[in-house]
Amino acid sequence: MGNYAIAIHGGAGRLMTGVFTPEQEKAYHDKLAEALQAGYAILAHDGTAVDAVEASVRVLEDSPLFNAGKGSVFNCEGQNEMDASIMNGKNLKAGAIAAVHTIRNPVSGARAVMEKSTHVLLAGAGAEKFAKECGIEIVPPSYFYDEERYQHWLATKDMEGASWAGDTYLTNQATTGKKFGTVGCVALDSAGNLAAATSTGGVNNKKFGRIGDSPIIGAGTYADNKTCAVSCTGEGEYFIRQSIAFDVSALIEYKGFTVAQAATEAIKKVAQLGGEGGLIAIDNKGNISVPFNTSSMFRGWINMEGEKFTGVFR
Amino acid sequence: MGNYAIAIHGGAGRLMTGVFTPEQEKAYHDKLAEALQAGYAILAHDGTAVDAVEASVRVLEDSPLFNAGKGSVFNCEGQNEMDASIMNGKNLKAGAIAAVHTIRNPVSGARAVMEKSTHVLLAGAGAEKFAKECGIEIVPPSYFYDEERYQHWLATKDMEGASWAGDTYLTNQATTGKKFGTVGCVALDSAGNLAAATSTGGVNNKKFGRIGDSPIIGAGTYADNKTCAVSCTGEGEYFIRQSIAFDVSALIEYKGFTVAQAATEAIKKVAQLGGEGGLIAIDNKGNISVPFNTSSMFRGWINMEGEKFTGVFR
Repeated sequence: MGNYAIAIHGGAGRLMTGVFTPEQEKAYHDKLAEALQAGYAILAHDGTAVDAVEASVRVLEDSPLFNAGKGSVFNCEGQNEMDASIMNGKNLKAGAIAAVHTIRNPVSGARAVMEKSTHVLLAGAGAEKFAKECGIEIVPPSYFYDEERYQHWLATKDMEGASWAGDTYLTNQATTGKKFGTVGCVALDSAGNLAAATSTGGVNNKKFGRIGDSPIIGAGTYADNKTCAVSCTGEGEYFIRQSIAFDVSALIEYKGFTVAQAATEAIKKVAQLGGEGGLIAIDNKGNISVPFNTSSMFRGWINMEGEKFTGVFR
Repeated sequence: MGNYAIAIHGGAGRLMTGVFTPEQEKAYHDKLAEALQAGYAILAHDGTAVDAVEASVRVLEDSPLFNAGKGSVFNCEGQNEMDASIMNGKNLKAGAIAAVHTIRNPVSGARAVMEKSTHVLLAGAGAEKFAKECGIEIVPPSYFYDEERYQHWLATKDMEGASWAGDTYLTNQATTGKKFGTVGCVALDSAGNLAAATSTGGVNNKKFGRIGDSPIIGAGTYADNKTCAVSCTGEGEYFIRQSIAFDVSALIEYKGFTVAQAATEAIKKVAQLGGEGGLIAIDNKGNISVPFNTSSMFRGWINMEGEKFTGVFR
């Protein structure tokens, strides 16, 4: 029990119960618990929310179970192409990187942008060069290779539309019984500061340099000590079109909504445009909300009472 | 006089009166008036707000007077690297492109993303490939070359920090007496639909694949028939960190602000973080607001009464 709390997600999707063996499902719960603990341990030692969300997201990035860092899906050219962002609710500083191939932990690259540049978003080779200059770990693109992801890409890459339609990714996952989720974390630290981070490999077989909501501050990630911290997952375009992460904050600040009301309203707006996904949000009193309109969202939290939860399905 | 209206900007900056000869200043007023008229003529014939904002922005992109399309500044590698976005307030559809070098009118590339893909943001070579497949005009990078911009880049590229500090761009412009501004347009059409578009060459000598607010829906551009249409200019990072374009809409929707109150409040927030810039906004009744906290902003409008205005300084 403390005056700090944390929540994570590993992606929303259309998974149906029974898609995993008990062992597979346990592996997800275990990894979610490990990621939560990585951030929570920092919070318990009066560490910062920024440190906590980075630490938790790194655990999820390092696991091939999720579509971020190692285990990222492949783009149409058979490459892993990653995006990430992070935001500090204390000073509204933010950092993000898009379309990178060689940064082992994209969330740490995003943090370098936040703390060591005056910019917010860097993309492509330039982002990689900046991260390297900041001492962020660079790895060969082969580091991100995952046999299962690659076979999935090979099996789906020639399906016309599979690469393009915004919602086909989730459909593909349902069809093949797989779900590779974007990851994220939000936290409140003992000093009352909020932070949020999101990291993704994007959509399977993505074309044309598509960038989703994960590296977009206000869409996929937002944090403001006045209100809340938010990380989103799902069909990113719908989140961008309504600045969903910022909107959760705005609904709290301007309309006096609770974090649960605001988060639920935001996901309702995603659905109204025809989109699917979910988000995790924590307010500055430690209240946590994790709404999603899909059948599944890998998620977990440790709340102000120290109670722990991990879940996959509704 | 009609039930339609339009506003444009050509960038906010630190220009001081006297920086231009009367002939130079007239050239800006004339080009702003021409751009306004291009969109207004469409609105006057019951054309759509989307068509109008695209048409006006194309005029500004085609002019070397502004930092968008032809006349874009040079990045640290001596290339022109452009971003643009567009949003339709009727259906909240949006499109954007980032870091492109060969699309003659980036705003039209953004519109292709909005209307011919299920995505919102495409970057780099992928965005160019998509635009080409959509029949958008592709030009050699040399098309964007402007001697004056290039000389400015040569003169400033080795100043450490000139390329990097978020606010140095504006400082440079003040120092050299130049201002190369991002461009944008917002419009209300006779059917009651709103649209917004923004286009930029980014910051002079930019490094590391920096992307500003112009291609970020919710930060540099937003449109929602329920509220308003917004296009921003200035130090993009400050606009991203507070989802400024979306926030103008949220303040109207959630707090009942007028568009002038909301736009002024948003620019106040930019200033509170230490940022400079401005925005143009039009609400769904045709009210126009063009606040900026810099000494200058190229801007113009034709309001519901058919009154015309163009301005550069306060």
